[in-house]
Amino acid sequence: MRDEEAHHAIHVLRYQPGDSISVVDGKGRWIDGEIISCSKKEVVIEVGETRQLTDENTLKQRVLALGLIKNRQRLEFAIEKSVELGATEIVLFQSQNTEREKVRMDRLELIARSAMKQSLRAWLPEIRFIASVPDLIENYKGYHMLVAHEKHRNLPEINPDWLINERLMALVGPEGGFADDEVETLAREGAELVSLGSYRLRAETAAIAFLARLIDR
Amino acid sequence: MRDEEAHHAIHVLRYQPGDSISVVDGKGRWIDGEIISCSKKEVVIEVGETRQLTDENTLKQRVLALGLIKNRQRLEFAIEKSVELGATEIVLFQSQNTEREKVRMDRLELIARSAMKQSLRAWLPEIRFIASVPDLIENYKGYHMLVAHEKHRNLPEINPDWLINERLMALVGPEGGFADDEVETLAREGAELVSLGSYRLRAETAAIAFLARLIDR
Repeated sequence: MRDEEAHHAIHVLRYQPGDSISVVDGKGRWIDGEIISCSKKEVVIEVGETRQLTDENTLKQRVLALGLIKNRQRLEFAIEKSVELGATEIVLFQSQNTEREKVRMDRLELIARSAMKQSLRAWLPEIRFIASVPDLIENYKGYHMLVAHEKHRNLPEINPDWLINERLMALVGPEGGFADDEVETLAREGAELVSLGSYRLRAETAAIAFLARLIDR
Repeated sequence: MRDEEAHHAIHVLRYQPGDSISVVDGKGRWIDGEIISCSKKEVVIEVGETRQLTDENTLKQRVLALGLIKNRQRLEFAIEKSVELGATEIVLFQSQNTEREKVRMDRLELIARSAMKQSLRAWLPEIRFIASVPDLIENYKGYHMLVAHEKHRNLPEINPDWLINERLMALVGPEGGFADDEVETLAREGAELVSLGSYRLRAETAAIAFLARLIDR
């Protein structure tokens, strides 16, 4: 374990030689070990039991596709909470109603990594950027797409039968909502429009509420 | 409409005479009207249609009881999201595992009010502080208490049958979790211990995931 992670382990978490430590690789592997030595830049660990908690083949794919949120704090909260709740991948997409924003992907990745460790997960969701709804559809063929779309009233709630699906994508529009023709395109491609309740939710709240109802039930 | 609300309506939302405006009273009443005049301190509205969307007698009580979160930003986020998701009341309680913290209740109330308007709700949840778990139980007799408690494994998930109950309280412990005897006391009083999934959630994430599964389904 090197550099930032080593620094964090020694100076923040205050690990010392002889301490037990658990390490994850972000690809589903959980390693229990013991610290042999610490220096400023390196922590040497004697590897004990290693378990593959999840792997790409058995992991149920739960992708969050979230329209870019302008407010950085709200975006970061959405990322952190999505990882805690078990999203396996996060796609930030640009919608017709999003202004082009500069996103600090490196910062979001740090937040995701920290949330993974905090929640005792071993899987680090990839965070991607996709430039349009058609590109999103093109890249995720084979996924059952569920779209939170509050502009339409009387949409059905999330159907529990969908949850057995291996590949689900929860789509939440940007602050201004999806453009009408984006919704039409999604519906034509087999996406389900669903309701998250009768009140207006902010984009990050919708993302969190959506995942809380999709995952681990 | 006076003072801060008037200022917000004119200077932030840029309302002008002749504009249609909707106003809520925080007690379930929704008023559509038209702006007659604006000054710095006062907006005069001609009241049009008035609807009582919810009232205390018909509102399903969905109380969030949340152990005090030290980190102010996380606490404020929990309050905002809980209001958006439809909590009818929010109780911050002190647990044996909470250090005594000073809480800016006035700030939390502003956040709640803003979230109410944002989510097009007409009900403003009261935010209360309660000093211990026994006091919490004493004050909410008649509520079906559901406790998110991750220390116990193999807890049942939220039972959909509970959702017809008029008075539900979702309890989420502080960052360190509930003390063992607090959990025993709660269980003895009929509280149900429930699982929110197999991973560790931060207190504010647990609160949001809990409410997302309790309300509006």
